[in-house]
Amino acid sequence: MRAIDIITKKRDGLELLDSEIADLIKAYTTEEIPDYQMAAWLMAVYFQGMTDRETAALTLAMATSGEMVDLSQVAGIKVDKHSTGGVADTTTLILAPLVAAAGVPVAKMSGRGLGFTGGTVDKLEAIPGFKATLERNEFIVNLQNYNIAITGQSATIAPADGKLYALRDVTATVESIPLIASSIMSKKIASGADKIVLDVKVGSGAFMKNQADAIKLAETMVRIGQLVGRETVAVLTSMEQPLGSAIGNSLEVREAIEVLSGRGEPALREVCLTLGSHMLVLGGKVLTTEAARQQLETLIDNKQALAKFGEFIVAQGGDAAILYHPAKLPQAKFALEVTSDSHGFVNEINAAQIGYAAMLLGAGREYKGQAIDLTAGVVIKCRIGQPISIGQPLAMIYSNVESKLNQTASILKKAISISNQVAESPTVIIGIVTQNSLQID
Amino acid sequence: MRAIDIITKKRDGLELLDSEIADLIKAYTTEEIPDYQMAAWLMAVYFQGMTDRETAALTLAMATSGEMVDLSQVAGIKVDKHSTGGVADTTTLILAPLVAAAGVPVAKMSGRGLGFTGGTVDKLEAIPGFKATLERNEFIVNLQNYNIAITGQSATIAPADGKLYALRDVTATVESIPLIASSIMSKKIASGADKIVLDVKVGSGAFMKNQADAIKLAETMVRIGQLVGRETVAVLTSMEQPLGSAIGNSLEVREAIEVLSGRGEPALREVCLTLGSHMLVLGGKVLTTEAARQQLETLIDNKQALAKFGEFIVAQGGDAAILYHPAKLPQAKFALEVTSDSHGFVNEINAAQIGYAAMLLGAGREYKGQAIDLTAGVVIKCRIGQPISIGQPLAMIYSNVESKLNQTASILKKAISISNQVAESPTVIIGIVTQNSLQID
Repeated sequence: MRAIDIITKKRDGLELLDSEIADLIKAYTTEEIPDYQMAAWLMAVYFQGMTDRETAALTLAMATSGEMVDLSQVAGIKVDKHSTGGVADTTTLILAPLVAAAGVPVAKMSGRGLGFTGGTVDKLEAIPGFKATLERNEFIVNLQNYNIAITGQSATIAPADGKLYALRDVTATVESIPLIASSIMSKKIASGADKIVLDVKVGSGAFMKNQADAIKLAETMVRIGQLVGRETVAVLTSMEQPLGSAIGNSLEVREAIEVLSGRGEPALREVCLTLGSHMLVLGGKVLTTEAARQQLETLIDNKQALAKFGEFIVAQGGDAAILYHPAKLPQAKFALEVTSDSHGFVNEINAAQIGYAAMLLGAGREYKGQAIDLTAGVVIKCRIGQPISIGQPLAMIYSNVESKLNQTASILKKAISISNQVAESPTVIIGIVTQNSLQID
Repeated sequence: MRAIDIITKKRDGLELLDSEIADLIKAYTTEEIPDYQMAAWLMAVYFQGMTDRETAALTLAMATSGEMVDLSQVAGIKVDKHSTGGVADTTTLILAPLVAAAGVPVAKMSGRGLGFTGGTVDKLEAIPGFKATLERNEFIVNLQNYNIAITGQSATIAPADGKLYALRDVTATVESIPLIASSIMSKKIASGADKIVLDVKVGSGAFMKNQADAIKLAETMVRIGQLVGRETVAVLTSMEQPLGSAIGNSLEVREAIEVLSGRGEPALREVCLTLGSHMLVLGGKVLTTEAARQQLETLIDNKQALAKFGEFIVAQGGDAAILYHPAKLPQAKFALEVTSDSHGFVNEINAAQIGYAAMLLGAGREYKGQAIDLTAGVVIKCRIGQPISIGQPLAMIYSNVESKLNQTASILKKAISISNQVAESPTVIIGIVTQNSLQID
């Protein structure tokens, strides 16, 4: 195998053999193939695409480039969930205890976020005492005891993906559906998931701006799952406005508690119930998503999901008192209410701009390793389609730097537009992609 | 300027600004941009192409990345000639003294070849005593005194092109017309040519296998010349069979002497007269190519062109006695005549295979810096369309390694096919591309 031949074959639109892809990724991981040849190959993939077979081969090659986590000591079907990322996306904090409470083991390896807010691991670290890095053995014991464990993703998981992603990031080859799909799926597979539920976000605040691309990505990942024997379901959800109301680490933990307590933003609850229903069905707990949903609603109503969140927090060293005394979560020194200057209806809540504002406040990272302010962030007080009058609150801003409040307020005022016309509230669940079908509302 | 933005812009099919291309090449030359970003950009260019304006900007950026040779001390319009490369292509050795004899200064910086035979510089080194590397000052003095000087291309000429070409070679991005065109033109422009005549080879023995690609390449280079103020004419010539009869360094010098003496292979003479005519017109010596051709034929008939070759050889330290005693050229120890096993007409003389045979004999290089055998090579004794009978000579093989003779003979027998049907002799001059027109026969 010569790298130049594999680049040429892809450039010319021919299908690569599984063994060619495996050799390429292996040689790249061991640095026998230099970055410049891989960069040329990635750009050729950008233009020529990959067949589902090629994409599955790439996924497996990246997954097996490092540790393959073995969760066979943990009873039950391990169902993992992944979101393609959005604004006010607090789903994991809600979904993990909710699904664990229903008896499906939730083994999550989460990254630290780059972008608007921290990743799940950062958010959990807002809980006093919480330990987000578990040894592999501790991780398995917690799973066995509590059905739930969340840890930071170690560098031993799919190192080829890490190396390749860093290269894509500087060579304009991020925006390729087979490359995005294989990157996501390789980490899930290496992390030991038997089955996978994907939350593919669509809209102005998501990586996938339009429905066609989102469907293509969802279908590609579901097909990879099928080809590698890890059944996958993808839920397409709207990211036209922030999903929940809170954007910021400590603030999102607070919102998760709200939803687990049966309150909180209905759209966020709806996404959690839909994803959770599919996790329960894949996990073999119930036969239909309707039955699953009913079970999950009961677990919220009878506070068992909230109790599971508490159990999980304690198991990882955290202070579960925050569940009933959220004021024990770290709080910013300063707050500012942003109110409406006009009268009408909320027409747009630009999720990307609001996420950007939260990042400027210190809630997210612009670069790897950057420190974040767990207390900083924004809470949105309105939804698209809602009537609004002058002086009514649009959002709350939280910061430890007083001077940032006004700066952020002006960004938020631009991001939330009020008009005379009633805007339709965006559909939260856009569609479901399973191995057998694509259902779009 | 961020490299990632330039890669993205090209990837998305947008036209780059001249300043963006200039910045990119400059930063790449100074190693501020790594190979992997350049590789991604090159592959994006492969797929999206470049406008003529972009290609001209790239050409100028590469030309000005090193020394810009200043020939202003030499009177007259300096017209350079470049061939895209073929088999038995001895044109420079004939053309340079021929055009110089007509009063147009010929300042050539030639490379050492990779492939079937050596480059012009290698061929000249077959002449005893010949010095193919001139100091810049010596080069100019010879031009002033004799109207002709040929030297090896120094590393100071268009270093960005050298660096970029090496990267293209390992990233499957060689086969891109704007990249090929800008590579050729950048070296000619940096070498100080006022005007340029290009010999674009078309056919099985050439890099451009089909006429459409060759026309596109020719038009791109002519347009670059126009955009950068260096008028360029491209002649499309056939490479369906070897152009001359000799393939090999010493053997080609011998054939050049033949043509300059009014004998030799008519196709080779025809290409030289056509290229030379355009050089004379561009050089301002005559108004029409018809008048130019007449003048060149006279210079061959009255031996002035041959005398100019002698003058040139002496000026660069060589022994001009080879002109009248070609046996003084280095000769191989062994020779073998290949004869026809059948009766019929010559149907095909596969130039690529014959070139490959010459390379195996040691006449060319497979890798940079490889030593070549100046005496080795092949002389073809037939032409496509010619009737042939059993036992009639097809070719002569020359080698210093006796065992190579039979091996080469079997390659040649396969490369020269005899059939019952009369094949048409390929047209030698296929077309001319000038700034104002494209003429195809």
